[in-house]
Amino acid sequence: MAELITVEDPADPRLYDYTGLTDVELRRRREPAEGLFIAEGEKVIRRATDAGYAMRSMLLSAKWVDVMRDVIDELTAPVYVVTPDLAEQVTGYHVHRGALASMQRKPLPAAGEMLAGARRVAVMEAVNDHTNIGAIFRSAAALGMDAVLLSPDCADPLYRRSVKVSMGAVFSVPYARLDTWPQGLEAVREAGFTLLALTPDEQARALDEVAPHTMDRVALMLGAEGDGLSRRAMAAADALVRIPMSHGVDSLNVGAAAAVAFYAVATGRPR
Amino acid sequence: MAELITVEDPADPRLYDYTGLTDVELRRRREPAEGLFIAEGEKVIRRATDAGYAMRSMLLSAKWVDVMRDVIDELTAPVYVVTPDLAEQVTGYHVHRGALASMQRKPLPAAGEMLAGARRVAVMEAVNDHTNIGAIFRSAAALGMDAVLLSPDCADPLYRRSVKVSMGAVFSVPYARLDTWPQGLEAVREAGFTLLALTPDEQARALDEVAPHTMDRVALMLGAEGDGLSRRAMAAADALVRIPMSHGVDSLNVGAAAAVAFYAVATGRPR
Repeated sequence: MAELITVEDPADPRLYDYTGLTDVELRRRREPAEGLFIAEGEKVIRRATDAGYAMRSMLLSAKWVDVMRDVIDELTAPVYVVTPDLAEQVTGYHVHRGALASMQRKPLPAAGEMLAGARRVAVMEAVNDHTNIGAIFRSAAALGMDAVLLSPDCADPLYRRSVKVSMGAVFSVPYARLDTWPQGLEAVREAGFTLLALTPDEQARALDEVAPHTMDRVALMLGAEGDGLSRRAMAAADALVRIPMSHGVDSLNVGAAAAVAFYAVATGRPR
Repeated sequence: MAELITVEDPADPRLYDYTGLTDVELRRRREPAEGLFIAEGEKVIRRATDAGYAMRSMLLSAKWVDVMRDVIDELTAPVYVVTPDLAEQVTGYHVHRGALASMQRKPLPAAGEMLAGARRVAVMEAVNDHTNIGAIFRSAAALGMDAVLLSPDCADPLYRRSVKVSMGAVFSVPYARLDTWPQGLEAVREAGFTLLALTPDEQARALDEVAPHTMDRVALMLGAEGDGLSRRAMAAADALVRIPMSHGVDSLNVGAAAAVAFYAVATGRPR
């Protein structure tokens, strides 16, 4: 059972994992370097723990101790009990969800290893927005993608906002980062995947026409909102695919496009 | 060609259409009652105009006059030219997009009339979030839904935020409001539609199994984020349908779910 420690000094060094949470640039640098990420709210903390992430510590206001009692009973990490005001002073915002946990990152799997057991992989290029990356992971998990591959310049799926928007799906879908881009895609093809690049370009083939649900192994490539995939990435693909559009609309938002494409490439469902 | 009028007094009654734009509750009441809606930003203003909405007036900072010159040349409505500071005093926020237009609403079509020419209809129940309603309209337009039906308690698709998130799709997909709920759905069935209620419930039939793309007329019912469809609404449907889910995930966000479902009910594409 974890120790409950009441902390009254916002400068207490034991709270360092939680300082300046609203400074996105700072946290972007610090969290991977320090090997931690922040889980926010009861549900997300439970999911991180269930997924096997080790907890470094938890920061709670007093009224959350009972809610989290069973989690605390299983822990060895320290639990810091603070007032809502002190939590706000440390983190920089009012912590509506009452509970924060600092979790230890795990080493990411090597891309090759992760691909060995997968049949449906989402590949993201330069998706920098934490909300979008979280939403895409949520859909990837729900719609049966086995794994996610990130270009070197994608945002961190374990950033607090991504984790929250994903509803913890970043814990359940394995992901890896490619070291080189787009060269690293060659290894995906060598692992037996057909690389499909999603684009609104009318020259691309309609997803249904390509019938990706009949293919053995599919890597579906997605670009960021607005820019889409780079030319270099599209040149590295086996085929360009598009979602057929109506009403003269030229694009879907990236979350909607990803969800439709994941559904279209899914296997094992009657057609 | 429209008259360009420089306004220097934030209390000038000619700017009344634009006052207090950040007060959601106030604007929610005022806009339908006064028969107007606000289009924000060059692209959305152009799309509203192209869709045949009449402009009541436009509010611009000076540097946007040239950008909007061709629109202004076609207008008879007054164009108020103001400083960014005055725009902020009137509206309550810094108008990043530089241009606002007050547009005249059109009478909504009667549901029966709208259904006559449609084969794919999205039906929303109690979708109150302006962002979600905008996102759903954008996907509905892109993915070939012919029309949208709203329960009496759905949010206003012409609210500024909905319009913006929809990228103007609220102008291109016709929509109507049902006067009674769920009784009003009976008229949809009488018009020849099969009513499919989307739910994460595992007892529901998988969308692909139901094969809605083979049906002549489909009305796809969607509930709000979190709550989903009410029991009464589900009881009024012909069938409950679900999107098959993996990884123990129990739901998609409403925007992703809507996009997948619209794609699955679309007709006219090879399967």
